Amino acid sequence: MTDAGMPTLRDVIAARPHVYRYLQRTPLYRYSGLSELLGTNIWVKHENHQPVGAFKVRGGVNLVAHLGEQERAAGLYTASTGNHGQSIAYAARAQGLRATIAVPEGANPGKVAAMRGLGAEVVVHGRDFDSARVWIEGVAAEQGGRFVGSTEELLIHGVGTYALEIVEDLPDVDAIIVPVGAGSGICATAIVAKAINPGIQVIGVQSAQAPAMQLSWASGKPVSADTTTVAEGLATRVPFANTQRIMRQYLDDFVLVEDAAIEEAIILLLEHTHNLAEGAGAASLAAACKLKHRLAGKNVVLVMSGGNLSMEQLRRLLAE
Amino acid sequence: MTDAGMPTLRDVIAARPHVYRYLQRTPLYRYSGLSELLGTNIWVKHENHQPVGAFKVRGGVNLVAHLGEQERAAGLYTASTGNHGQSIAYAARAQGLRATIAVPEGANPGKVAAMRGLGAEVVVHGRDFDSARVWIEGVAAEQGGRFVGSTEELLIHGVGTYALEIVEDLPDVDAIIVPVGAGSGICATAIVAKAINPGIQVIGVQSAQAPAMQLSWASGKPVSADTTTVAEGLATRVPFANTQRIMRQYLDDFVLVEDAAIEEAIILLLEHTHNLAEGAGAASLAAACKLKHRLAGKNVVLVMSGGNLSMEQLRRLLAE
Repeated sequence: MTDAGMPTLRDVIAARPHVYRYLQRTPLYRYSGLSELLGTNIWVKHENHQPVGAFKVRGGVNLVAHLGEQERAAGLYTASTGNHGQSIAYAARAQGLRATIAVPEGANPGKVAAMRGLGAEVVVHGRDFDSARVWIEGVAAEQGGRFVGSTEELLIHGVGTYALEIVEDLPDVDAIIVPVGAGSGICATAIVAKAINPGIQVIGVQSAQAPAMQLSWASGKPVSADTTTVAEGLATRVPFANTQRIMRQYLDDFVLVEDAAIEEAIILLLEHTHNLAEGAGAASLAAACKLKHRLAGKNVVLVMSGGNLSMEQLRRLLAE
Repeated sequence: MTDAGMPTLRDVIAARPHVYRYLQRTPLYRYSGLSELLGTNIWVKHENHQPVGAFKVRGGVNLVAHLGEQERAAGLYTASTGNHGQSIAYAARAQGLRATIAVPEGANPGKVAAMRGLGAEVVVHGRDFDSARVWIEGVAAEQGGRFVGSTEELLIHGVGTYALEIVEDLPDVDAIIVPVGAGSGICATAIVAKAINPGIQVIGVQSAQAPAMQLSWASGKPVSADTTTVAEGLATRVPFANTQRIMRQYLDDFVLVEDAAIEEAIILLLEHTHNLAEGAGAASLAAACKLKHRLAGKNVVLVMSGGNLSMEQLRRLLAE
């Protein structure tokens, strides 16, 4: 909270009326089966219950609420592997704006269909998120549109409302584990948690098959890395500078888990919570399994950041 | 509302403070993919997002709030195929009461584990729900405990709060489709919907492999029927008189769907909503598919009454 250039708890509190105009609080539930399995108290923050199936929509509606007349008229342009795009599509439709979204080749077809179902124009371009992003940024500049970056501060402010709900619903929380893609979720969580109680451990998780954000955080300098993960929500090849800066200041730890552990976590979550998590959404449980001894006996919140697993992925997982 | 012996909208409104002391509103979302598929506007009421994964918990917490000191001290006794038992276990634990629950042989193991996880004593007895119920009613009488019937009025009053949320969130609703087991959900929905707007169609659905409630409603007299359905939440062998009486007064229609159609609906819901529905929870979509032509162009709410599908059932379904 000492750095004037960083988002603060106050920004998150200011975002609340904009967020709750369109969205409602999500549940935080304790699961006895998972708690027994891990020898700790496991709570799940159900961001998969959001209307687009992921936490990002909190940021989208906050950002759109702050646009000026000219930006609103010009329409929104962004790139996404899926959930950020759904968030922008949802927020744009809620306030009557146009949205154009670039997705990489091979994008999760359910997420693409959902963006189109929300009225967005979806264009497939490039081999991964970063290629799609560079291209659509150029298109936005050409068209005079408003490009929306994945980690803009207004998105972080909106997203932080879920972290505030966690601390309100469970004041004795000891640790919060957050999946990391571009970093908006973990940064928002760290800012809120540390401002309220610096003793709350904030732990990030990325896939070992997409480690750029973790490697950058651990080394203190930007490291790009190829991504082969099945969890497209964690697949960031080029790290984001603004979220790295916040993460370096606030994070207690940042772990990597194998895709195989993420897939096991999807099954465990289906069995014990009856919720479908996508890979990113299940990564927090995979991390808790890895950190089991350190977390013993604590109140641990797993952020189920999204639930948009494709049927193809689910069928493959359950057949294994 | 003319029959003094029946629950009314006023009872449901009176239940709200008791329900919202422990539970929060559940989302009502429109799904564009399902809407296109059916040529209508499909909204899903997500009672699967409740802490025990099913709507019944609304009734449980309302009932427990109304118990006298003697009943509280004596503890609760009930029978359940799963979700009603979880509801009573949850409500009992929330207010520090003991709960003993009889389940039939072969009960959904996840539901049994969840009841135990909530601190209830679970006893397996009898070949089906009705056998378990007769037995535990005797035990309660012996022990001086409080037997909780599946369709007590205080349960119906609490459950009705979801119907009120539907009409508040979507005042233009044309039809609400509700899965029927013992009938508390459909009766509560009908009482609320018809009191606010008699034009709202209230439609029940049961499995053709468990048709007792539907046959009783259609013929106007109690008809028992064997149950072989995979959807244990719909598996009522002996009809309940009090819910039949309400259903006969208020229901617009009551359809039967094959188990195979319910299983297809579970897959469709996974694909389009990324929510896991149990058989009963998916029956409302199966009914909407059957009634597709009649519902064309309308605002149709499907009550996803519960999400507690076992992994065994899910694996079998996805392998087919």
